[in-house]
Amino acid sequence: MSTFQEIKTHEITTDVVIFTIKNNKLQVLLVKRANEPFKGRWAIPGGFIRLSENLDAAALRILKEKTNVDNIYLEQLYTFGDPLRYPGSRVITCAYFALIRSDDIKLSVDNSQGITEVQWHEVYNLPTLAYDHKEIIEYSIKRMRERLEFCPIAFQLLPEKFTLTELQKSYELILDMKLDKRNFRKKVLTGAILKELNEYTKVGSKRPARLYSFDNITLNSKRGHFFS
Amino acid sequence: MSTFQEIKTHEITTDVVIFTIKNNKLQVLLVKRANEPFKGRWAIPGGFIRLSENLDAAALRILKEKTNVDNIYLEQLYTFGDPLRYPGSRVITCAYFALIRSDDIKLSVDNSQGITEVQWHEVYNLPTLAYDHKEIIEYSIKRMRERLEFCPIAFQLLPEKFTLTELQKSYELILDMKLDKRNFRKKVLTGAILKELNEYTKVGSKRPARLYSFDNITLNSKRGHFFS
Repeated sequence: MSTFQEIKTHEITTDVVIFTIKNNKLQVLLVKRANEPFKGRWAIPGGFIRLSENLDAAALRILKEKTNVDNIYLEQLYTFGDPLRYPGSRVITCAYFALIRSDDIKLSVDNSQGITEVQWHEVYNLPTLAYDHKEIIEYSIKRMRERLEFCPIAFQLLPEKFTLTELQKSYELILDMKLDKRNFRKKVLTGAILKELNEYTKVGSKRPARLYSFDNITLNSKRGHFFS
Repeated sequence: MSTFQEIKTHEITTDVVIFTIKNNKLQVLLVKRANEPFKGRWAIPGGFIRLSENLDAAALRILKEKTNVDNIYLEQLYTFGDPLRYPGSRVITCAYFALIRSDDIKLSVDNSQGITEVQWHEVYNLPTLAYDHKEIIEYSIKRMRERLEFCPIAFQLLPEKFTLTELQKSYELILDMKLDKRNFRKKVLTGAILKELNEYTKVGSKRPARLYSFDNITLNSKRGHFFS
């Protein structure tokens, strides 16, 4: 194995963490590695960045090549630079993430990409992962939870119109904890982020529930509008 | 000048953006470059990361070497990877930032570090900078403003106890806009982030103003506490 005296250069990869809510669980998209190191292990889709490409473009390209997922907005998460994170080399990874509706995408595998499978996995019940990918996913969850407290990011995981129960469920899945229903409703209804619609869920065995959507005016917050 | 065919490897730097409020202005710490490229230009303090060091440690080391500033908490901001950002090479920079009280630090220059001066500059009145550093500073301001809407980050720029006028001034400096005093006070006083103290500013020519501090219980927000 190389020591640091032998490693001559930095290398850069990007890893792309994609979350969704599927089967009432928070899930993350993983690929199964065909080659060493960590052959047969699940990993976050990722790859080396080309010298001539921007980081954002690299993340989109690699996601598309490894999973066939494209047309989604990726946000840069964090750059991980522990010198020991990658066996035998100095590889820094710039991680990106996104929250999506799994119905919106179609997965497929390209074996020439060193991948044998691509699959959603429950975030709170992960298999052993390659590299420091468990740590990267944990960091993503932490970031998502922090932003949940202050920004209505849950909208990225929900359909355009949703009930308060569905909204609460998405928060509970991200936080991995049960919330008090009355307290939650009070907070989100006074938070000025929801638009109450004049529509209800279809009549079925349950009482119809009112539908809501996110208030775009609040979401596209201009500089300082909160205080003006 | 090298073309991309000639550039063989990635290189990684870190750049550290430090903001403060000084003389009633939002200011950023800059260094004057002794060497090419951009000799004589002001720049964000930065430098190359060593193969064996973690990114966070590199940022602290470089800040200390270039400016003598240490003992501050740096937060990773963003990794900039435009292939054309650094003349003649492929250099990706992982930027860090912090908001500090300028009284807390003592600047000094080490000429062996390729620096001739280190100085605070008004953020809204910058000289021409090296590389893409103007863009990096603009990104930092944008990030700071976004977080201001949702998190009480202004506390990092204020003394432990402050008046509502001082608090409003810090927001106005970060946002670069005047705010309505009554609306601002209403928002911050109902936002549950302030602790009203039983202390006032010293008696002088002005009417004494009540002092406040930030509510640590709210700041150290546990997971989901906002909803529980």
